[in-house]
Amino acid sequence: MKRRPVVGVTMGDAAGIGPEIIVKCLMDPDIYEICRPLVIGDADVLEGAAAMLGNRIKVKSLVEPEEASFIVGSIDVLDLGNLALGDFKPGEISVASGRASFQYIKRSVELALAGRIDAITTAPINKEAVNRAGFRYPGHTEILADLTVCSDYAMMLVSDTLRVTHVSTHISLRGACAGVKKGNVLKIIALSEKAARSLGFTSPRIAVAGLNPHAGEGGLFGEEEIREISPAIEEARMSGIMASGPYPPDTVFLRASRGEFDVVVAMYHDQGHIAVKMLGLEEGVNVTIGLPIVRTSVDHGTAYDIAWKGVADHRSMRRAIQLAAEMAGRKAKAST
Amino acid sequence: MKRRPVVGVTMGDAAGIGPEIIVKCLMDPDIYEICRPLVIGDADVLEGAAAMLGNRIKVKSLVEPEEASFIVGSIDVLDLGNLALGDFKPGEISVASGRASFQYIKRSVELALAGRIDAITTAPINKEAVNRAGFRYPGHTEILADLTVCSDYAMMLVSDTLRVTHVSTHISLRGACAGVKKGNVLKIIALSEKAARSLGFTSPRIAVAGLNPHAGEGGLFGEEEIREISPAIEEARMSGIMASGPYPPDTVFLRASRGEFDVVVAMYHDQGHIAVKMLGLEEGVNVTIGLPIVRTSVDHGTAYDIAWKGVADHRSMRRAIQLAAEMAGRKAKAST
Repeated sequence: MKRRPVVGVTMGDAAGIGPEIIVKCLMDPDIYEICRPLVIGDADVLEGAAAMLGNRIKVKSLVEPEEASFIVGSIDVLDLGNLALGDFKPGEISVASGRASFQYIKRSVELALAGRIDAITTAPINKEAVNRAGFRYPGHTEILADLTVCSDYAMMLVSDTLRVTHVSTHISLRGACAGVKKGNVLKIIALSEKAARSLGFTSPRIAVAGLNPHAGEGGLFGEEEIREISPAIEEARMSGIMASGPYPPDTVFLRASRGEFDVVVAMYHDQGHIAVKMLGLEEGVNVTIGLPIVRTSVDHGTAYDIAWKGVADHRSMRRAIQLAAEMAGRKAKAST
Repeated sequence: MKRRPVVGVTMGDAAGIGPEIIVKCLMDPDIYEICRPLVIGDADVLEGAAAMLGNRIKVKSLVEPEEASFIVGSIDVLDLGNLALGDFKPGEISVASGRASFQYIKRSVELALAGRIDAITTAPINKEAVNRAGFRYPGHTEILADLTVCSDYAMMLVSDTLRVTHVSTHISLRGACAGVKKGNVLKIIALSEKAARSLGFTSPRIAVAGLNPHAGEGGLFGEEEIREISPAIEEARMSGIMASGPYPPDTVFLRASRGEFDVVVAMYHDQGHIAVKMLGLEEGVNVTIGLPIVRTSVDHGTAYDIAWKGVADHRSMRRAIQLAAEMAGRKAKAST
């Protein structure tokens, strides 16, 4: 039997649903079949979440990852000792939980870069809490990129039938239009191809969406397709990437989800996000591509409104851990 | 039994799939249960399509709509005598078919405005053919708007679970961003509410999408939500319209399709089109709202690549005729 990868699961914002969905995932023996999960967080908070769920699962507090035993029925927590149950209120922003959630990420990155864990799956953080704690970042992904000293990265949404990368994400739509430049598009095509391989596609077919309606209809509805996107596709093809397009944005995602393409490169956040969310799945996963480490994430937020009530859906978290394990396994195989 | 509305069905571009999908629809006795369909086109071409389908249906050539008998097993055609079978080649652009397809629309509008037919359903035209024939229009809808002297109209996509209107359609995404102004948004909210009533919603719930990711996240990713969209929603509400938003674009369409809202106002073409197309239905219908007449349309093009081969899917056409009949029936009821 091959060695199961160690997946570091950061606890996320304690006041959100992170602790609960992690406990729910790690109560499932199937997870232990494919990986060795190590929570990076605070043992006291996880014990609280387990108790809230009425569960007798044992939370084991560790100082170093190598102390973990990975036994079904217990949860191994690298206990950073940042936060006790009384230090925050469910569903409320706090500096304490913001600071702690940043520390979980920082520690997990150090461990991953040192090869002491094989992948990271992150539970949601509260952006405002992290910023109030003094860590100025626009989002989770930017923290990871900064800590790994990576500038060429992108967000990929992954569902069973559809994988989408984005040329831009958290900027205005006007800003996104301005950012559709040959260099940017080419970079994301190349990252997408590499990411598709790490997801198991041996000859990835990369579809590139247009920016404008009908992909510009020959320049009638905008010229980005002619001036920027087509030249980027052309250059990608010359470097051996099986890229095609630009395709009309309103049908390319459906075509991909029906099997015609392995990855779609979307030109902006909502182009890709609307398509993936319309699939109506509760198992979407967010993968940060381009980083030197494997990182997956849930595709939802802290859900403060339902936090610590026992009702949170952990399917996206479970799928994120599974996918991290799969990607780490392939990475290990490729490097041997 | 209430009077069944007369739905004028324009034949569209003869070289495309229009004649075929019309014949397929009118072979179905169910259509005659809900309306009295009158094709506005050329009898010779329809006879050709019926023969191609191996069908013994009788094509009745008429000079005035009042001569129609609307009997199952025959097709009533207001025969404009523009085009014979030999005047065009399947799948090829021609001035003759472009000119003819414009004439079908023109005649159908005259009849609808005069109350001699109750609604119009249009088969697809070829924009380039129409333009080559000397009629300079960016699209089908603009012809209808011009012929009915209407300036406040919009495109609504209708499926069983989701209805979407658009603040802009066939312009560049940059142009669409620039067009997100309070007045435009308010106009489309009001048109959407009226259209929803004509579709049978007595207290329409209108959701308004944002323009930017996360609906701007409080101004962080763009200010159109704060400056333009929210004030438009506010004003709509003050006039008694049940409008709400702006909602994050990546989830509002799924929420609507699951029953939370009756219509979503999209800020640009692909925002709405990606959402509706991802439903993967073959029964989407395009409704032009704001016109003084009822007009529905298929949501696809002429499909030159499969024209006159007998393989075209007529489900969107059938649904478009049904919807036109329903809307005409409600309009008649409202005016009595």
